[in-house]
Amino acid sequence: MVTVRLWVLLLLAISLVTGGAARAEDGYRLWLRNAPVVHAAQQRPGQVTLSGSESPTALLARDELTRGLSELFPGVGPAGGTAILLRRAGDSAMRDGAFNIISSEQRVTITAASDTGLLYGAFALLRELGQGKTLGAIRLDESPAYTLRMLNHWDNPDGHVERGYAGRSIFDWWHLPGHVDARMTDYARANASIGINGVVINNVNARAMMLEPRYIAKVKALADTFRPWGIRVYVSARFSAPRDIGGLATADPLDPAVRAWWKAKSDEIYTAIPDFGGFLVKANSEGQPGPQDYGRSHADGANMLAEAIGDRGTVIWRAFVYAAENREDRAKQAFTEFQPLDGTFAPNVVVQVKNGPIDFQPREPFHPLFGAMPQTRLSLELEITKEYLGFASHLAFLAPLFEETLDADTGRRGTVARTVSVIAGVANTGSDRNWTGSHFDQANWYAFGRLAWDPRVPSAQIAREWAAQTFSRDPAFLNAVVPMMLGSREAVVDYMTPLGLAHVMGTGHHYGPAPWVSDLARPEWNPVYYHRADRDGIGFDRTATGSDALAHYAPDVAQRLLADEELLLWFRRVSWDHRLSSGRTLWEELPRRYDRGVATVERMRVTWASLAPHVDAQRHRAVADFLGIQADEARWWRDASLAYWSAMAQRPLPAGHAAPQHPLSWYQARSVPEAPGE
Amino acid sequence: MVTVRLWVLLLLAISLVTGGAARAEDGYRLWLRNAPVVHAAQQRPGQVTLSGSESPTALLARDELTRGLSELFPGVGPAGGTAILLRRAGDSAMRDGAFNIISSEQRVTITAASDTGLLYGAFALLRELGQGKTLGAIRLDESPAYTLRMLNHWDNPDGHVERGYAGRSIFDWWHLPGHVDARMTDYARANASIGINGVVINNVNARAMMLEPRYIAKVKALADTFRPWGIRVYVSARFSAPRDIGGLATADPLDPAVRAWWKAKSDEIYTAIPDFGGFLVKANSEGQPGPQDYGRSHADGANMLAEAIGDRGTVIWRAFVYAAENREDRAKQAFTEFQPLDGTFAPNVVVQVKNGPIDFQPREPFHPLFGAMPQTRLSLELEITKEYLGFASHLAFLAPLFEETLDADTGRRGTVARTVSVIAGVANTGSDRNWTGSHFDQANWYAFGRLAWDPRVPSAQIAREWAAQTFSRDPAFLNAVVPMMLGSREAVVDYMTPLGLAHVMGTGHHYGPAPWVSDLARPEWNPVYYHRADRDGIGFDRTATGSDALAHYAPDVAQRLLADEELLLWFRRVSWDHRLSSGRTLWEELPRRYDRGVATVERMRVTWASLAPHVDAQRHRAVADFLGIQADEARWWRDASLAYWSAMAQRPLPAGHAAPQHPLSWYQARSVPEAPGE
Repeated sequence: MVTVRLWVLLLLAISLVTGGAARAEDGYRLWLRNAPVVHAAQQRPGQVTLSGSESPTALLARDELTRGLSELFPGVGPAGGTAILLRRAGDSAMRDGAFNIISSEQRVTITAASDTGLLYGAFALLRELGQGKTLGAIRLDESPAYTLRMLNHWDNPDGHVERGYAGRSIFDWWHLPGHVDARMTDYARANASIGINGVVINNVNARAMMLEPRYIAKVKALADTFRPWGIRVYVSARFSAPRDIGGLATADPLDPAVRAWWKAKSDEIYTAIPDFGGFLVKANSEGQPGPQDYGRSHADGANMLAEAIGDRGTVIWRAFVYAAENREDRAKQAFTEFQPLDGTFAPNVVVQVKNGPIDFQPREPFHPLFGAMPQTRLSLELEITKEYLGFASHLAFLAPLFEETLDADTGRRGTVARTVSVIAGVANTGSDRNWTGSHFDQANWYAFGRLAWDPRVPSAQIAREWAAQTFSRDPAFLNAVVPMMLGSREAVVDYMTPLGLAHVMGTGHHYGPAPWVSDLARPEWNPVYYHRADRDGIGFDRTATGSDALAHYAPDVAQRLLADEELLLWFRRVSWDHRLSSGRTLWEELPRRYDRGVATVERMRVTWASLAPHVDAQRHRAVADFLGIQADEARWWRDASLAYWSAMAQRPLPAGHAAPQHPLSWYQARSVPEAPGE
Repeated sequence: MVTVRLWVLLLLAISLVTGGAARAEDGYRLWLRNAPVVHAAQQRPGQVTLSGSESPTALLARDELTRGLSELFPGVGPAGGTAILLRRAGDSAMRDGAFNIISSEQRVTITAASDTGLLYGAFALLRELGQGKTLGAIRLDESPAYTLRMLNHWDNPDGHVERGYAGRSIFDWWHLPGHVDARMTDYARANASIGINGVVINNVNARAMMLEPRYIAKVKALADTFRPWGIRVYVSARFSAPRDIGGLATADPLDPAVRAWWKAKSDEIYTAIPDFGGFLVKANSEGQPGPQDYGRSHADGANMLAEAIGDRGTVIWRAFVYAAENREDRAKQAFTEFQPLDGTFAPNVVVQVKNGPIDFQPREPFHPLFGAMPQTRLSLELEITKEYLGFASHLAFLAPLFEETLDADTGRRGTVARTVSVIAGVANTGSDRNWTGSHFDQANWYAFGRLAWDPRVPSAQIAREWAAQTFSRDPAFLNAVVPMMLGSREAVVDYMTPLGLAHVMGTGHHYGPAPWVSDLARPEWNPVYYHRADRDGIGFDRTATGSDALAHYAPDVAQRLLADEELLLWFRRVSWDHRLSSGRTLWEELPRRYDRGVATVERMRVTWASLAPHVDAQRHRAVADFLGIQADEARWWRDASLAYWSAMAQRPLPAGHAAPQHPLSWYQARSVPEAPGE
């Protein structure tokens, strides 16, 4: 009788699981799938106990662990297994969020000085178990490298995400605060699981409406939802807000009425959101208002806001500036403008610097401001969304790109990782069911979080962790997929911007190749500004004979960068017959790079096809389809670029390289005005 | 031992079901949840057998039935139960899609003359069972009232949905044809389950790019996906396409080169999509190009396209026209323009007429073209998306609105339902997880399909069917929720546009009250054009003393409409002291209507709160939140409207009605520029 009832229940449960397309693996659960561990020899997890604090965050730590363990070890009851204890330590030397895990046969103890640390410890334990490690053998002692680990959302109040390739904004501004979508909890949980503790919830190209009372109420609703997960909310502030919505005639940061307005506005926000994180500001860049509109400096603007919010929060001020009227090499402008301001920013100001001096290209040298502003707190801004790396449809695992920047030796105060105190990533989330527009783009969100927590974690480890939790922990799968991921970003460099090329993409949407564009209003918007190709050669001379941007780096670093052939055309203008270390000329090497990129994508398709037995059908199919799109577009990039370089160099392709499929004019005529993300 | 293994499996299955937020009830499964039937006395379903045809559609019919039965009756194996037979009949008298179901104790037989009929029969059987009916007692003999039952998507290639309140377009144009999202199958299945057999996949405000080869490839990928579900694909065609993308200097429908271009374009499409449905055209309306740009008539334009596609498909030509330079009452223009063309359209042209003569208002009289073009095939265009009825956040069940139009006696050829041969609904789908932006808006998609299949199905039955399948078949739940749904649209009329008012909403986005707007470029864009309120009275005189739009109706119908107080201010301009049948003056009645609407919403909140035991927490909470938003906005409509009428009438509100919360100027200053859907 019992057996019959069980069968009925079992079939009921299975039918609910398998009965609808809705139950298919659609990627929604990200790396938090907790697929059952099938090892027979696993220690059995027992009861999870929380000692001391019963704050919402501590309770979440306990509940996540309980739930995660029941998913990883279904059917194994708590009785008699290894006890798991979450405990708060009085150790004030532990950084907020830090935790340690010690284990014995009878007990696993997660200790932290803060409830957030308990939550991170709980997720870390699940992550280790999710990779197949044995419960009693897990020992961790972790402390976050940076106190602020932030996502920057370029989401607008109307739901459009600038440079977003995963649907609309996940923030349902329209129905906030009346309705907080259940997805907001899942979003916060995913962030917490990788240690992200701050989110800027709107675009740096900000609308002042975000500071109106009706939006403060919406932001508060999000802040209340995110708080138990250890996440503070920040807002991108439009510098001209005192004029736009404040009724003032000016936004001059030294004007007393302006200062009073920001102070009152900050107080209004902090009344609603006591742990409000602060403001992010893009000022005097790409048409945004800023202190220079009033003859004031960036420091004047930032310090005015810093005074308004006081020690309650942080002002994050972007160094991504370049100006239409400024004829200086765009790669130099941020340094020229900000480096002299070192030491003038208030203590609660952070200057946020993109990883490279132009704009999130597939490969750039690190930004020379890193190491050059020793008296200023800097934030490293990485772009998780693949604005210049093929949108969501190209598989490009970005951990190697992030790692390349973090590990770069500045020649001044150590690596980039050591010169910064904040890490920010431009989010790639959207309303798509799989969050990021493609299954593999989830890995970039994950990698960002892991590196913001600990910049020393190798890309290969991150790839393996992620793939094991997201798809399968079968070594046969991991041994194939991890190398594929690790090589994927270099493939994009090869077929888009080899040898230090940059900014050769289509106008506006940044989709597809357009190295020929030369008719845009501002010189530095045109690809020809960057590559300068003609009959004699190609490349931007940034040595002393050119813009001398190289001089912004420490001398020994400058020498190393100049010698790096992967950055050849970034720093030097050379003839097509320039001889490379390989013995080949540039004109011989270029098509080899493009071909290598295309071939790598083709190999990725083969690899992925072979992994079908390890991956559910829906996600396998989606990735395979996207790799097909990527292969087509890689060929487009290769053919269009080579057709153009060939025309510029006035020479045919070297022997052994297939001619472009169409004449150059065909590629120049190709128009995709509806490309997403602009 | 068996029991232990079972327990493990059971817990595994349950953990998969309950383990993640992803498994919560999120509305994705629509009315196709097939929640288990718990009656003990149910006959057990047995094997499903398909006799004859094994076409993809017939196999879907079998598989849907097998899957649906296993969901409805989990744990009940097929052996020994009532056999279910799907069989094709040779009966050529049966309309395509028609089916009948006969039952005995041993066998249920679904018979149809087409495979689509088998599919519809399978869904119909599941629908009956889903409401708790007994397998052996189901007898149905159904035939669709209309051969074309269509959704019109106002979706743009960039993913934006005009008047869409459920996120982005469900069509992922960007990745088509390389990737067809799994959701496309779920979408087609949902449509098939309610008999929808055609979809226009792009906005009537069309871009010519939809006719380019790269888009034809995308449309083909969708058509291939939808075909097995009995759904044909249509495209909104931009009339100027021969100029926009064809390289011609004109789009004159009588120009031989233009005619040849459309013929070649049609051939190109039919080569890719042999069962392509045809074109939908919005011409010479709201700035769209059309034949009148060349001095030709709508019939000239439509017949030219009809000739191009020949008997392969249908040209659907919208009668929604009004012109800036035309000073005639907007409510008259479509009739004036189209009625004289009766008899001049080619046989494969359908003229599509909105339900009312203005534009999808909460209440309009039926459109006078119905019944007035006896020699022309007409399509009734309904709006499922709630452009003017509170967007997705207001609960307004539209079946009573649709029914009101369908049942209206034209006085010429019977009811509106009898004068039309096609039914079209402007879709409310989007990328939101629950498809329609709110759980209750799913009911409007469902109601549209059911009424397009059979316009005689009462709204109450539709509400009951839908609620039983979507939420709970518990009679206690249904007896509360069905009356709530049935009264919801009238509540919107009450708090937005009582007594025949119309078009008093905000500019552009159509959000919120703005009866005061009078400064828009075209007179008929201004709310004041429609209500004409001043100190003396209110309303639009459409009798012989005014625009005489009333004369477009059959005389006895005109008399009936004129006597209908629900349409009072639509047809008549009256003084504020006009005496109504209730004995109250208009000025006394107006606030009663607004108050009644607000009170109804408050009652809906109470009703819904009481239904918590019947509904899963996530969906219950979401609906409750939205009802809260609706209550706030209903009060906003009431207060802003009454403040304005009071100022116009220069009289205070009658005693017993609360004063508006704010002065009129406050409502006039309220600005929501980011409102969705424009």
